[in-house]
Amino acid sequence: MGNPSLFKIIMKYSILTIGDEICIGQIINGNAAEIASVMTSIGYSSYMHSIVPDDRELITDEIKRLLLKSEVLIMTGGLGPTHDDITKSVLCDFFEDDLVLHQDTLQHLQKWFKSRNRNMSEMNKAQALIPSKSTALRNRVGTAPGILFSHDGKYILAMPGVPAEMKDILVNEFVPLAIKFFNENSGNVQIYRTIKTSGIFESDLAELIGSPDSFPDGVKLAFLPSAGTVRLRIGANAGSKSEAEKLIDEMNQLIIDKAGQYIFGYDNDSLQQFVGHILRTKSKSLAVAESCTGGLLGALITEVPGSSEYFTGGVISYSNEMKMKLLNVDKSTLETFGAVSEQTACEMALGVRMKCNTDIGISITGVAGPDGGTENKPVGTVFIAYSDEEKTYAVKCHFGKDRNMNRERAAVKALEILRKELS
Amino acid sequence: MGNPSLFKIIMKYSILTIGDEICIGQIINGNAAEIASVMTSIGYSSYMHSIVPDDRELITDEIKRLLLKSEVLIMTGGLGPTHDDITKSVLCDFFEDDLVLHQDTLQHLQKWFKSRNRNMSEMNKAQALIPSKSTALRNRVGTAPGILFSHDGKYILAMPGVPAEMKDILVNEFVPLAIKFFNENSGNVQIYRTIKTSGIFESDLAELIGSPDSFPDGVKLAFLPSAGTVRLRIGANAGSKSEAEKLIDEMNQLIIDKAGQYIFGYDNDSLQQFVGHILRTKSKSLAVAESCTGGLLGALITEVPGSSEYFTGGVISYSNEMKMKLLNVDKSTLETFGAVSEQTACEMALGVRMKCNTDIGISITGVAGPDGGTENKPVGTVFIAYSDEEKTYAVKCHFGKDRNMNRERAAVKALEILRKELS
Repeated sequence: MGNPSLFKIIMKYSILTIGDEICIGQIINGNAAEIASVMTSIGYSSYMHSIVPDDRELITDEIKRLLLKSEVLIMTGGLGPTHDDITKSVLCDFFEDDLVLHQDTLQHLQKWFKSRNRNMSEMNKAQALIPSKSTALRNRVGTAPGILFSHDGKYILAMPGVPAEMKDILVNEFVPLAIKFFNENSGNVQIYRTIKTSGIFESDLAELIGSPDSFPDGVKLAFLPSAGTVRLRIGANAGSKSEAEKLIDEMNQLIIDKAGQYIFGYDNDSLQQFVGHILRTKSKSLAVAESCTGGLLGALITEVPGSSEYFTGGVISYSNEMKMKLLNVDKSTLETFGAVSEQTACEMALGVRMKCNTDIGISITGVAGPDGGTENKPVGTVFIAYSDEEKTYAVKCHFGKDRNMNRERAAVKALEILRKELS
Repeated sequence: MGNPSLFKIIMKYSILTIGDEICIGQIINGNAAEIASVMTSIGYSSYMHSIVPDDRELITDEIKRLLLKSEVLIMTGGLGPTHDDITKSVLCDFFEDDLVLHQDTLQHLQKWFKSRNRNMSEMNKAQALIPSKSTALRNRVGTAPGILFSHDGKYILAMPGVPAEMKDILVNEFVPLAIKFFNENSGNVQIYRTIKTSGIFESDLAELIGSPDSFPDGVKLAFLPSAGTVRLRIGANAGSKSEAEKLIDEMNQLIIDKAGQYIFGYDNDSLQQFVGHILRTKSKSLAVAESCTGGLLGALITEVPGSSEYFTGGVISYSNEMKMKLLNVDKSTLETFGAVSEQTACEMALGVRMKCNTDIGISITGVAGPDGGTENKPVGTVFIAYSDEEKTYAVKCHFGKDRNMNRERAAVKALEILRKELS
């Protein structure tokens, strides 16, 4: 957004999230990310996100403030059936409007409850009341419809906070309208592409790629590290989508030339997808043996639709007994080297490969914490072993002190080992 | 916050998250939830959260706006080593300040890189530059220190956006200062407790508990549904912490009287913790057999520290072959009824209980989607079976169309079945 004169004619949206539960940190605001990601993908630019408690005055102030700078204002939360849901009433006050019974929604609700063999209470029936100046947007997965105002050439959309309901209304009802609105009004376009890398640190990657002075004009680059991977987000601003795409392609090529070996995918690609893709292409099968991760690696691998083509399953060997019984780890190995050791990891990977009759076996055993650490093997010590027909070896990792972080990093590291071996 | 005269003397904080990656929905704002949760736990009330792109003018405007209504402003993002990190420079302009080299931080950085056998680049060295009027707060898990200004009787804190680094600085460096600041300045106190329920719908629970008119004065109740569970958040506002706690206890008792049978815990308690607690108390052992969830149930169970006391592990039987080989599911069962059936689920639960020699076996087999659905067994059909010495049975569930949601709901439902059987 380095060029303010271009920025002015970009179509902007804001997100207003309503709910004490978000303000006090009880819930992570996944809805805002979902909305932002969808709006970005259809060409809109973000002005701002704002999160306020269930407070009439604050909500009203924010609607006013955000509408000044946005063509579209998207609100979530406060549309449920209970007394703490005040969004409809605030919108009625703001637009000097009244609630009326919306027959279509009422019929939908009656069907919804009937098909679930549930009684429809008065509280539920009230969800068919909507402001008379608004349009009700159908909610296929829940009871509260979306509420859309078109006002002063701007859209104001209110949706329930339940993620699946919000997503259904957003994608199926609102996005077609938003695309039409965009095409009728938009000037400049801002688009993004994300390159995903693993196996290199953020600062090393930045030095490889070099100074922003060497980037094409209108291009911005951001570095986004997370457990074991770094994402590179390219943003381009231009007069048309095709011009912006050309800039993105140019910058993409620059990064491939300088750091191509670390790239595993784009945008929503995941390391598990990348690994799955190579396994499928090479017709290789995989099984996992998990100790401290307890199934997390298997859960990541099977996030990918169609993973049954290359993933047969595996063993969660949380106890030593299971390591021996289901993976044929030698009792003497466990006694001599311990459950968290290079030797045990290797026998687990080999064992699961044999047991499941796959081309590749991968295993994880470690001290996730908070207890179980020793001087030689402190919390965060994890062994990850790889086994195929030609070789079996283990990698020793030192992660941190947080149990869940250690488990996540171990699972990502196992995927990274698979990536290296397969590519 | 029904009483504005009390609200005025509550100590308030705001969160300002900086970063295009959050604005465009590439990253979910977990940091804001973490900060809010910590600040709430020490008595602060949330004024507002705001998320802005990496844009000097917007950041500056938001600092001004939020500081007007907050005693503490907490910022995250834009403190990394790369060129897109502008927070320090914005703060220097805002406070009419300059960057100076902070020797303590420089030494810490030198040690940090040395202990990891990495070279310290000029880019990394620049992280030891901090505004002269600020205090550097030590970052034990990364390279960018926290930056704290004390200005006009208010605190302004900037932290890096990497979650583990943010959390380290927040909890270990800032919270002790924030508690002191609170005790010196606070008037009224607002506190919260969350009751966690499962096995009942939000609207049914609301009708059981009854109208807000019957609640104690100063108490608010919010309903927060998510996959398979509903949380009830009680908020209480009073002149002292002990008075507020008394109100919370009173409301808690009202809910126990009306809906006690659905309660499984409080605040950060999870269903997996609750189930683990009963297993431990009753000295029962558990094993899992997972098909469509691919390890997710095992991963949830082993999130709980000490779960090895009751969880031995299990089998990820993603293929039919694994169901037969590792769980002794009959070939004829698979052929006659299919992999997704009551019969297969029961044989899996029984099989894993036998194989792992545990008191209880639980299994999940289903069509997670997007492919694999049939007319009789559409996407979202999942069988969950329970087996102990006395009985083995399966429950048929109909979830939705989203693969990851189906997997998550199946794992939560399995935990809910365990809860019912055990309590």
